[in-house]
Amino acid sequence: MYKLVLIRHGESTWNLENRFTGWTDVDLTPTGVSQAMSAGKLLKAEGWDFDLCYTSVLKRAIRTLWLTLDEMDRTWLPVVKDYRLNERHYGGLQGLNKADMAKQYGDEQVLVWRRSYDTPPPALEATDPRCERSDRRYPNPEAVPLTECLKDTVARVVPYWTETIAPSIQSGKRVLIAAHGNSIRALIKYLDGISDSDIVSLNIPNGIPLVYELDENLKPIRHYYLGDAAAAAAAAAAVASQGKA
Amino acid sequence: MYKLVLIRHGESTWNLENRFTGWTDVDLTPTGVSQAMSAGKLLKAEGWDFDLCYTSVLKRAIRTLWLTLDEMDRTWLPVVKDYRLNERHYGGLQGLNKADMAKQYGDEQVLVWRRSYDTPPPALEATDPRCERSDRRYPNPEAVPLTECLKDTVARVVPYWTETIAPSIQSGKRVLIAAHGNSIRALIKYLDGISDSDIVSLNIPNGIPLVYELDENLKPIRHYYLGDAAAAAAAAAAVASQGKA
Repeated sequence: MYKLVLIRHGESTWNLENRFTGWTDVDLTPTGVSQAMSAGKLLKAEGWDFDLCYTSVLKRAIRTLWLTLDEMDRTWLPVVKDYRLNERHYGGLQGLNKADMAKQYGDEQVLVWRRSYDTPPPALEATDPRCERSDRRYPNPEAVPLTECLKDTVARVVPYWTETIAPSIQSGKRVLIAAHGNSIRALIKYLDGISDSDIVSLNIPNGIPLVYELDENLKPIRHYYLGDAAAAAAAAAAVASQGKA
Repeated sequence: MYKLVLIRHGESTWNLENRFTGWTDVDLTPTGVSQAMSAGKLLKAEGWDFDLCYTSVLKRAIRTLWLTLDEMDRTWLPVVKDYRLNERHYGGLQGLNKADMAKQYGDEQVLVWRRSYDTPPPALEATDPRCERSDRRYPNPEAVPLTECLKDTVARVVPYWTETIAPSIQSGKRVLIAAHGNSIRALIKYLDGISDSDIVSLNIPNGIPLVYELDENLKPIRHYYLGDAAAAAAAAAAVASQGKA
Protein backbone atom coordinates (compact mmCIF):
# COMPACT_ATOMS: atom_id res chain seq x y z
CA MET A 1 0.00 0.00 0.00
CA TYR A 2 1.15 3.50 -0.81
CA LYS A 3 0.41 6.84 0.80
CA LEU A 4 0.28 10.03 -1.21
CA VAL A 5 -0.09 13.48 0.35
CA LEU A 6 -1.67 16.37 -1.54
CA ILE A 7 -1.60 19.98 -0.36
CA ARG A 8 -3.40 22.86 -1.99
CA HIS A 9 -1.31 26.03 -1.59
CA GLY A 10 -2.05 28.36 1.31
CA GLU A 11 -4.28 31.39 0.85
CA SER A 12 -3.04 33.59 -1.99
CA THR A 13 -3.45 37.33 -2.37
CA TRP A 14 -6.13 36.73 -4.99
CA ASN A 15 -7.90 34.11 -2.87
CA LEU A 16 -8.12 36.88 -0.29
CA GLU A 17 -9.32 39.42 -2.85
CA ASN A 18 -11.75 36.80 -4.24
CA ARG A 19 -10.34 37.14 -7.75
CA PHE A 20 -10.06 34.45 -10.41
CA THR A 21 -6.37 33.53 -10.46
CA GLY A 22 -5.64 30.66 -12.83
CA TRP A 23 -2.09 30.86 -14.12
CA THR A 24 -1.48 34.37 -12.75
CA ASP A 25 1.57 34.02 -10.49
CA VAL A 26 0.33 35.65 -7.29
CA ASP A 27 1.99 35.02 -3.95
CA LEU A 28 0.75 33.78 -0.57
CA THR A 29 -0.79 36.12 1.99
CA PRO A 30 0.58 36.06 5.57
CA THR A 31 -2.34 33.70 6.33
CA GLY A 32 -1.23 31.48 3.45
CA VAL A 33 2.32 31.42 4.78
CA SER A 34 0.99 30.45 8.18
CA GLN A 35 -1.20 27.70 6.66
CA ALA A 36 1.77 26.24 4.83
CA MET A 37 3.90 26.30 7.99
CA SER A 38 1.08 24.64 9.92
CA ALA A 39 0.88 21.91 7.28
CA GLY A 40 4.59 21.23 7.72
CA LYS A 41 4.35 21.22 11.53
CA LEU A 42 1.40 18.82 11.36
CA LEU A 43 3.16 16.44 8.97
CA LYS A 44 6.24 16.47 11.16
CA ALA A 45 4.30 16.00 14.40
CA GLU A 46 2.46 13.02 12.92
CA GLY A 47 5.69 11.43 11.72
CA TRP A 48 5.15 11.82 7.98
CA ASP A 49 8.14 11.79 5.71
CA PHE A 50 8.75 11.92 1.97
CA ASP A 51 11.29 11.04 -0.69
CA LEU A 52 10.14 13.15 -3.61
CA CYS A 53 8.01 16.27 -4.06
CA TYR A 54 6.13 17.63 -7.02
CA THR A 55 4.76 21.12 -7.49
CA SER A 56 3.68 23.52 -10.22
CA VAL A 57 5.68 26.41 -11.64
CA LEU A 58 3.53 28.94 -9.74
CA LYS A 59 5.01 30.55 -6.66
CA ARG A 60 2.01 30.09 -4.38
CA ALA A 61 2.42 26.31 -4.68
CA ILE A 62 6.23 26.39 -4.66
CA ARG A 63 6.33 28.60 -1.57
CA THR A 64 3.77 26.39 0.15
CA LEU A 65 6.03 23.43 -0.53
CA TRP A 66 9.16 25.28 0.62
CA LEU A 67 7.51 26.34 3.88
CA THR A 68 6.15 22.85 4.47
CA LEU A 69 9.55 21.25 3.85
CA ASP A 70 11.27 23.84 5.98
CA GLU A 71 9.05 23.03 8.97
CA MET A 72 9.75 19.33 8.40
CA ASP A 73 13.53 19.99 8.19
CA ARG A 74 13.40 18.47 4.71
CA THR A 75 14.60 21.38 2.54
CA TRP A 76 17.02 18.92 0.93
CA LEU A 77 14.29 16.71 -0.59
CA PRO A 78 14.23 16.63 -4.40
CA VAL A 79 11.50 18.82 -5.87
CA VAL A 80 10.18 18.52 -9.42
CA LYS A 81 8.31 21.56 -10.77
CA ASP A 82 6.04 21.07 -13.76
CA TYR A 83 3.46 23.34 -15.39
CA ARG A 84 1.14 20.38 -15.78
CA LEU A 85 0.37 20.75 -12.07
CA ASN A 86 -0.56 24.42 -12.53
CA GLU A 87 -4.00 25.67 -11.56
CA ARG A 88 -6.76 25.47 -14.14
CA HIS A 89 -6.33 28.35 -16.59
CA TYR A 90 -9.13 30.83 -16.02
CA GLY A 91 -8.97 32.50 -19.45
CA GLY A 92 -10.41 36.00 -19.69
CA LEU A 93 -11.62 35.86 -16.10
CA GLN A 94 -8.06 35.94 -14.69
CA GLY A 95 -7.78 38.94 -12.40
CA LEU A 96 -11.53 39.64 -12.19
CA ASN A 97 -13.46 39.55 -8.91
CA LYS A 98 -15.68 36.51 -8.39
CA ALA A 99 -18.43 38.38 -6.54
CA ASP A 100 -18.38 41.26 -9.07
CA MET A 101 -18.80 38.75 -11.87
CA ALA A 102 -21.68 37.15 -9.94
CA LYS A 103 -23.38 40.54 -9.60
CA GLN A 104 -22.87 41.20 -13.31
CA TYR A 105 -23.62 37.77 -14.78
CA GLY A 106 -25.47 36.03 -11.93
CA ASP A 107 -24.46 33.33 -9.46
CA GLU A 108 -25.40 30.63 -11.91
CA GLN A 109 -23.09 31.82 -14.68
CA VAL A 110 -20.21 32.15 -12.23
CA LEU A 111 -20.89 28.66 -10.94
CA VAL A 112 -20.72 27.40 -14.53
CA TRP A 113 -17.37 29.16 -15.03
CA ARG A 114 -16.06 27.90 -11.72
CA ARG A 115 -17.38 24.40 -11.70
CA SER A 116 -18.73 23.27 -15.07
CA TYR A 117 -16.77 20.22 -16.10
CA ASP A 118 -16.66 20.96 -19.80
CA THR A 119 -17.59 24.61 -20.37
CA PRO A 120 -14.49 26.83 -20.27
CA PRO A 121 -14.63 30.52 -19.36
CA PRO A 122 -14.15 33.02 -22.23
CA ALA A 123 -10.67 32.61 -23.72
CA LEU A 124 -7.85 35.12 -23.32
CA GLU A 125 -6.66 36.71 -26.53
CA ALA A 126 -3.12 35.57 -27.30
CA THR A 127 -2.25 39.29 -27.51
CA ASP A 128 -3.72 40.01 -24.05
CA PRO A 129 -0.96 41.16 -21.67
CA ARG A 130 -2.30 38.55 -19.24
CA CYS A 131 -1.48 35.73 -21.68
CA GLU A 132 1.42 33.58 -20.45
CA ARG A 133 2.71 32.54 -23.87
CA SER A 134 5.62 34.97 -23.70
CA ASP A 135 6.60 33.79 -20.21
CA ARG A 136 9.77 31.77 -20.64
CA ARG A 137 8.90 29.37 -17.85
CA TYR A 138 6.70 27.81 -20.53
CA PRO A 139 9.20 26.73 -23.18
CA ASN A 140 6.45 25.55 -25.52
CA PRO A 141 3.96 28.43 -25.98
CA GLU A 142 1.56 26.10 -27.79
CA ALA A 143 1.13 24.17 -24.54
CA VAL A 144 -0.07 27.32 -22.76
CA PRO A 145 -3.88 27.35 -22.76
CA LEU A 146 -5.95 30.48 -23.40
CA THR A 147 -8.66 29.08 -21.13
CA GLU A 148 -9.51 25.73 -19.56
CA CYS A 149 -12.50 23.89 -18.22
CA LEU A 150 -11.78 21.21 -15.64
CA LYS A 151 -11.90 18.60 -18.39
CA ASP A 152 -8.94 20.36 -20.03
CA THR A 153 -7.06 20.40 -16.73
CA VAL A 154 -7.73 16.67 -16.30
CA ALA A 155 -6.33 16.17 -19.81
CA ARG A 156 -2.94 17.59 -18.76
CA VAL A 157 -2.78 16.51 -15.10
CA VAL A 158 -3.65 12.83 -15.65
CA PRO A 159 -0.93 12.11 -18.25
CA TYR A 160 1.61 13.74 -15.92
CA TRP A 161 0.34 11.55 -13.10
CA THR A 162 0.43 8.42 -15.25
CA GLU A 163 3.78 9.01 -16.91
CA THR A 164 5.74 10.63 -14.10
CA ILE A 165 4.21 10.69 -10.63
CA ALA A 166 2.60 7.23 -10.53
CA PRO A 167 5.79 5.36 -11.54
CA SER A 168 7.74 7.21 -8.86
CA ILE A 169 5.20 6.11 -6.22
CA GLN A 170 5.25 2.53 -7.47
CA SER A 171 9.04 2.56 -7.30
CA GLY A 172 8.59 3.02 -3.55
CA LYS A 173 9.05 6.78 -3.20
CA ARG A 174 6.86 8.57 -0.69
CA VAL A 175 5.42 11.47 -2.66
CA LEU A 176 4.17 14.90 -1.60
CA ILE A 177 2.36 17.08 -4.16
CA ALA A 178 1.85 20.80 -3.51
CA ALA A 179 -0.53 22.10 -6.14
CA HIS A 180 -3.78 23.99 -6.74
CA GLY A 181 -7.50 23.62 -6.12
CA ASN A 182 -8.30 22.47 -9.63
CA SER A 183 -5.17 20.50 -10.47
CA ILE A 184 -5.83 18.54 -7.25
CA ARG A 185 -9.54 18.17 -8.14
CA ALA A 186 -8.51 16.90 -11.58
CA LEU A 187 -6.25 14.28 -10.03
CA ILE A 188 -8.84 13.22 -7.45
CA LYS A 189 -11.51 12.93 -10.13
CA TYR A 190 -9.28 10.49 -11.94
CA LEU A 191 -8.13 8.55 -8.87
CA ASP A 192 -11.58 8.19 -7.30
CA GLY A 193 -13.46 7.87 -10.61
CA ILE A 194 -15.74 10.78 -9.71
CA SER A 195 -18.40 11.56 -12.31
CA ASP A 196 -18.42 14.74 -14.36
CA SER A 197 -21.46 15.95 -12.40
CA ASP A 198 -20.30 14.96 -8.90
CA ILE A 199 -16.93 16.67 -9.24
CA VAL A 200 -18.75 20.04 -9.19
CA SER A 201 -19.30 19.80 -5.44
CA LEU A 202 -15.75 18.75 -4.51
CA ASN A 203 -13.80 21.61 -2.93
CA ILE A 204 -10.23 21.56 -1.63
CA PRO A 205 -9.31 23.76 1.35
CA ASN A 206 -6.05 25.72 1.39
CA GLY A 207 -3.01 24.32 3.13
CA ILE A 208 -4.42 21.17 4.75
CA PRO A 209 -2.59 17.92 3.96
CA LEU A 210 -4.91 15.43 2.23
CA VAL A 211 -3.78 11.80 2.49
CA TYR A 212 -4.66 9.22 -0.15
CA GLU A 213 -3.99 5.60 0.72
CA LEU A 214 -3.55 3.66 -2.52
CA ASP A 215 -3.40 -0.03 -3.30
CA GLU A 216 -0.68 -1.63 -5.40
CA ASN A 217 -2.43 -0.47 -8.59
CA LEU A 218 -2.76 3.03 -7.12
CA LYS A 219 -6.51 2.67 -6.65
CA PRO A 220 -7.63 4.67 -3.59
CA ILE A 221 -8.48 2.67 -0.47
CA ARG A 222 -9.42 5.73 1.59
CA HIS A 223 -8.56 9.37 2.00
CA TYR A 224 -8.62 11.87 4.85
CA TYR A 225 -7.43 15.31 5.83
CA LEU A 226 -4.78 15.55 8.53
CA GLY A 227 -5.57 17.56 11.63
CA ASP A 228 -9.00 18.85 12.56
CA ALA A 229 -11.57 17.21 10.21
CA ALA A 230 -14.28 19.74 11.04
CA ALA A 231 -11.94 22.64 10.24
CA ALA A 232 -11.06 21.04 6.90
CA ALA A 233 -14.76 20.61 6.05
CA ALA A 234 -15.52 24.22 7.01
CA ALA A 235 -12.59 25.46 4.90
CA ALA A 236 -13.81 23.42 1.91
CA ALA A 237 -17.33 24.86 2.33
CA ALA A 238 -15.87 28.36 2.36
CA VAL A 239 -14.16 27.64 -0.98
CA ALA A 240 -17.52 26.52 -2.40
CA SER A 241 -19.16 29.83 -1.48
CA GLN A 242 -16.55 32.13 -3.05
CA GLY A 243 -18.44 32.64 -6.31
CA LYS A 244 -21.59 34.07 -4.79
CA ALA A 245 -22.67 37.67 -5.13
CA MET B 1 31.06 31.78 -24.54
CA TYR B 2 29.28 30.69 -21.39
CA LYS B 3 28.68 32.45 -18.09
CA LEU B 4 28.49 30.57 -14.83
CA VAL B 5 27.53 32.17 -11.52
CA LEU B 6 28.71 30.77 -8.20
CA ILE B 7 27.40 31.90 -4.81
CA ARG B 8 28.72 30.81 -1.47
CA HIS B 9 25.84 30.65 1.03
CA GLY B 10 25.17 33.66 3.26
CA GLU B 11 26.57 33.81 6.79
CA SER B 12 25.56 30.74 8.80
CA THR B 13 25.06 30.48 12.54
CA TRP B 14 28.37 28.67 12.83
CA ASN B 15 30.17 31.16 10.60
CA LEU B 16 28.99 33.73 13.14
CA GLU B 17 30.09 31.57 16.09
CA ASN B 18 33.39 30.87 14.28
CA ARG B 19 32.88 27.10 14.48
CA PHE B 20 34.01 24.45 12.02
CA THR B 21 30.84 23.44 10.20
CA GLY B 22 31.50 20.96 7.40
CA TRP B 23 28.47 18.79 6.79
CA THR B 24 26.62 19.94 9.92
CA ASP B 25 23.31 21.32 8.67
CA VAL B 26 23.22 24.74 10.30
CA ASP B 27 20.99 27.52 9.04
CA LEU B 28 21.62 31.10 7.90
CA THR B 29 21.80 33.99 10.36
CA PRO B 30 19.62 37.08 9.70
CA THR B 31 22.77 38.58 8.12
CA GLY B 32 23.05 35.50 5.91
CA VAL B 33 19.42 35.86 4.86
CA SER B 34 20.05 39.48 4.02
CA GLN B 35 23.21 38.59 2.03
CA ALA B 36 21.28 36.03 -0.02
CA MET B 37 18.49 38.51 -0.72
CA SER B 38 21.06 41.13 -1.74
CA ALA B 39 22.63 38.61 -4.14
CA GLY B 40 19.24 38.06 -5.76
CA LYS B 41 18.52 41.80 -5.97
CA LEU B 42 21.92 42.41 -7.54
CA LEU B 43 21.53 39.63 -10.10
CA LYS B 44 18.09 40.91 -11.02
CA ALA B 45 19.19 44.56 -11.20
CA GLU B 46 22.07 43.61 -13.51
CA GLY B 47 19.79 41.59 -15.78
CA TRP B 48 21.15 38.13 -15.00
CA ASP B 49 18.93 35.17 -15.61
CA PHE B 50 19.30 31.39 -15.39
CA ASP B 51 17.84 28.16 -16.69
CA LEU B 52 19.09 25.65 -14.14
CA CYS B 53 20.37 25.79 -10.58
CA TYR B 54 22.53 23.43 -8.57
CA THR B 55 22.99 23.35 -4.83
CA SER B 56 24.06 21.01 -2.04
CA VAL B 57 21.79 19.11 0.34
CA LEU B 58 22.64 21.51 3.18
CA LYS B 59 20.05 24.09 4.14
CA ARG B 60 22.39 27.09 4.31
CA ALA B 61 23.08 26.69 0.58
CA ILE B 62 19.51 25.70 -0.31
CA ARG B 63 18.04 28.66 1.56
CA THR B 64 20.57 31.00 -0.03
CA LEU B 65 19.43 29.73 -3.42
CA TRP B 66 15.74 30.01 -2.52
CA LEU B 67 16.16 33.60 -1.30
CA THR B 68 18.20 34.52 -4.36
CA LEU B 69 15.62 33.02 -6.73
CA ASP B 70 12.79 34.63 -4.81
CA GLU B 71 14.31 38.09 -5.25
CA MET B 72 14.77 37.36 -8.96
CA ASP B 73 11.15 36.15 -9.26
CA ARG B 74 12.55 32.83 -10.44
CA THR B 75 11.22 30.44 -7.78
CA TRP B 76 10.03 28.23 -10.66
CA LEU B 77 13.52 27.47 -11.98
CA PRO B 78 14.58 23.81 -11.78
CA VAL B 79 16.92 23.13 -8.85
CA VAL B 80 19.12 20.06 -8.57
CA LYS B 81 20.39 19.25 -5.07
CA ASP B 82 23.40 16.96 -4.74
CA TYR B 83 25.60 16.07 -1.78
CA ARG B 84 28.66 16.31 -4.01
CA LEU B 85 28.34 20.10 -3.74
CA ASN B 86 28.35 19.91 0.07
CA GLU B 87 30.96 21.75 2.09
CA ARG B 88 34.26 19.98 2.78
CA HIS B 89 33.70 17.51 5.62
CA TYR B 90 35.52 18.80 8.69
CA GLY B 91 35.79 15.46 10.50
CA GLY B 92 36.26 15.60 14.25
CA LEU B 93 36.53 19.39 14.15
CA GLN B 94 32.84 19.82 13.24
CA GLY B 95 31.21 21.96 15.91
CA LEU B 96 34.44 23.15 17.51
CA ASN B 97 35.43 26.81 17.69
CA LYS B 98 38.17 27.90 15.29
CA ALA B 99 39.77 30.40 17.65
CA ASP B 100 39.60 27.96 20.59
CA MET B 101 41.36 25.38 18.47
CA ALA B 102 43.97 27.97 17.52
CA LYS B 103 44.59 28.76 21.21
CA GLN B 104 44.88 25.05 21.99
CA TYR B 105 46.85 23.82 18.98
CA GLY B 106 48.32 27.05 17.56
CA ASP B 107 47.47 29.15 14.53
CA GLU B 108 49.68 27.04 12.32
CA GLN B 109 47.90 23.75 13.09
CA VAL B 110 44.51 25.36 12.51
CA LEU B 111 45.74 26.79 9.21
CA VAL B 112 46.84 23.27 8.21
CA TRP B 113 43.38 21.91 9.09
CA ARG B 114 41.65 24.77 7.32
CA ARG B 115 43.78 25.13 4.27
CA SER B 116 46.19 22.23 3.76
CA TYR B 117 45.44 20.71 0.40
CA ASP B 118 46.08 17.12 1.34
CA THR B 119 46.13 16.82 5.14
CA PRO B 120 42.64 16.11 6.50
CA PRO B 121 41.57 17.04 10.03
CA PRO B 122 41.20 14.15 12.53
CA ALA B 123 38.45 11.79 11.34
CA LEU B 124 35.07 11.44 13.01
CA GLU B 125 34.37 8.02 14.49
CA ALA B 126 31.56 6.34 12.54
CA THR B 127 29.83 5.93 15.92
CA ASP B 128 30.11 9.65 16.74
CA PRO B 129 26.64 11.22 16.98
CA ARG B 130 27.94 13.91 14.63
CA CYS B 131 28.55 11.32 11.88
CA GLU B 132 26.10 11.76 8.99
CA ARG B 133 26.06 8.11 7.88
CA SER B 134 22.65 7.50 9.48
CA ASP B 135 21.16 10.63 7.84
CA ARG B 136 18.83 9.38 5.13
CA ARG B 137 19.58 12.28 2.82
CA TYR B 138 22.73 10.27 2.07
CA PRO B 139 21.35 7.04 0.59
CA ASN B 140 24.83 5.52 0.33
CA PRO B 141 26.50 5.75 3.77
CA GLU B 142 29.80 4.62 2.25
CA ALA B 143 29.89 7.86 0.28
CA VAL B 144 29.72 9.91 3.49
CA PRO B 145 33.26 10.91 4.48
CA LEU B 146 34.52 10.85 8.06
CA THR B 147 36.84 13.75 7.23
CA GLU B 148 38.12 15.47 4.12
CA CYS B 149 41.05 17.56 3.02
CA LEU B 150 40.42 19.86 0.05
CA LYS B 151 41.92 17.22 -2.24
CA ASP B 152 39.12 14.87 -1.18
CA THR B 153 36.52 17.56 -1.85
CA VAL B 154 38.02 18.14 -5.30
CA ALA B 155 37.73 14.40 -5.90
CA ARG B 156 33.94 14.50 -5.47
CA VAL B 157 33.15 17.99 -6.82
CA VAL B 158 35.07 17.69 -10.09
CA PRO B 159 33.38 14.46 -11.29
CA TYR B 160 30.01 16.04 -10.54
CA TRP B 161 31.05 19.08 -12.53
CA THR B 162 32.33 16.98 -15.42
CA GLU B 163 29.49 14.50 -15.59
CA THR B 164 26.52 16.69 -14.72
CA ILE B 165 27.05 20.45 -14.53
CA ALA B 166 29.43 20.96 -17.45
CA PRO B 167 27.22 19.12 -19.99
CA SER B 168 24.22 21.21 -18.89
CA ILE B 169 26.21 24.42 -19.49
CA GLN B 170 27.42 23.19 -22.87
CA SER B 171 23.83 22.35 -23.81
CA GLY B 172 23.17 26.10 -23.53
CA LYS B 173 21.68 26.32 -20.05
CA ARG B 174 22.61 29.32 -17.94
CA VAL B 175 23.70 27.82 -14.64
CA LEU B 176 23.69 29.18 -11.09
CA ILE B 177 25.44 27.19 -8.34
CA ALA B 178 24.77 27.96 -4.67
CA ALA B 179 27.30 26.06 -2.62
CA HIS B 180 29.98 26.33 0.06
CA GLY B 181 33.38 27.91 0.62
CA ASN B 182 35.32 24.73 -0.04
CA SER B 183 33.14 23.09 -2.70
CA ILE B 184 33.46 26.37 -4.63
CA ARG B 185 37.24 26.48 -3.97
CA ALA B 186 37.48 22.88 -5.23
CA LEU B 187 35.68 23.78 -8.45
CA ILE B 188 37.71 26.95 -8.99
CA LYS B 189 40.96 25.08 -8.39
CA TYR B 190 39.98 22.73 -11.20
CA LEU B 191 38.64 25.40 -13.57
CA ASP B 192 41.56 27.82 -13.15
CA GLY B 193 44.22 25.13 -12.75
CA ILE B 194 45.35 26.60 -9.43
CA SER B 195 48.30 24.79 -7.83
CA ASP B 196 48.00 22.83 -4.60
CA SER B 197 49.99 25.51 -2.81
CA ASP B 198 48.30 28.59 -4.31
CA ILE B 199 44.79 27.37 -3.48
CA VAL B 200 45.57 27.92 0.23
CA SER B 201 45.21 31.66 -0.14
CA LEU B 202 41.94 31.63 -2.12
CA ASN B 203 38.96 32.64 0.03
CA ILE B 204 35.34 32.95 -1.01
CA PRO B 205 33.12 35.58 0.66
CA ASN B 206 29.56 34.77 1.73
CA GLY B 207 26.65 35.65 -0.52
CA ILE B 208 28.41 37.57 -3.31
CA PRO B 209 27.76 36.32 -6.86
CA LEU B 210 31.00 35.25 -8.55
CA VAL B 211 30.85 35.19 -12.34
CA TYR B 212 33.01 32.89 -14.44
CA GLU B 213 33.13 33.54 -18.16
CA LEU B 214 34.04 30.30 -19.90
CA ASP B 215 35.08 29.48 -23.45
CA GLU B 216 33.50 26.74 -25.53
CA ASN B 217 35.64 24.14 -23.74
CA LEU B 218 34.64 25.65 -20.38
CA LYS B 219 38.10 27.10 -19.83
CA PRO B 220 37.85 30.34 -17.82
CA ILE B 221 38.38 33.58 -19.75
CA ARG B 222 37.92 35.81 -16.72
CA HIS B 223 36.06 35.98 -13.45
CA TYR B 224 34.75 38.75 -11.24
CA TYR B 225 32.48 39.40 -8.28
CA LEU B 226 29.27 41.30 -8.91
CA GLY B 227 28.69 44.51 -7.00
CA ASP B 228 31.31 46.29 -4.93
CA ALA B 229 34.71 44.72 -5.71
CA ALA B 230 36.37 46.24 -2.64
CA ALA B 231 33.63 44.87 -0.39
CA ALA B 232 34.09 41.40 -1.91
CA ALA B 233 37.84 41.55 -1.32
CA ALA B 234 37.36 42.69 2.29
CA ALA B 235 34.86 39.88 2.89
CA ALA B 236 37.28 37.32 1.45
CA ALA B 237 40.06 38.65 3.69
CA ALA B 238 37.78 38.30 6.71
CA VAL B 239 37.23 34.63 5.81
CA ALA B 240 41.00 34.14 5.69
CA SER B 241 41.43 35.47 9.24
CA GLN B 242 38.80 33.26 10.90
CA GLY B 243 41.24 30.61 12.10
CA LYS B 244 43.43 32.92 14.18
CA ALA B 245 43.56 32.86 17.95
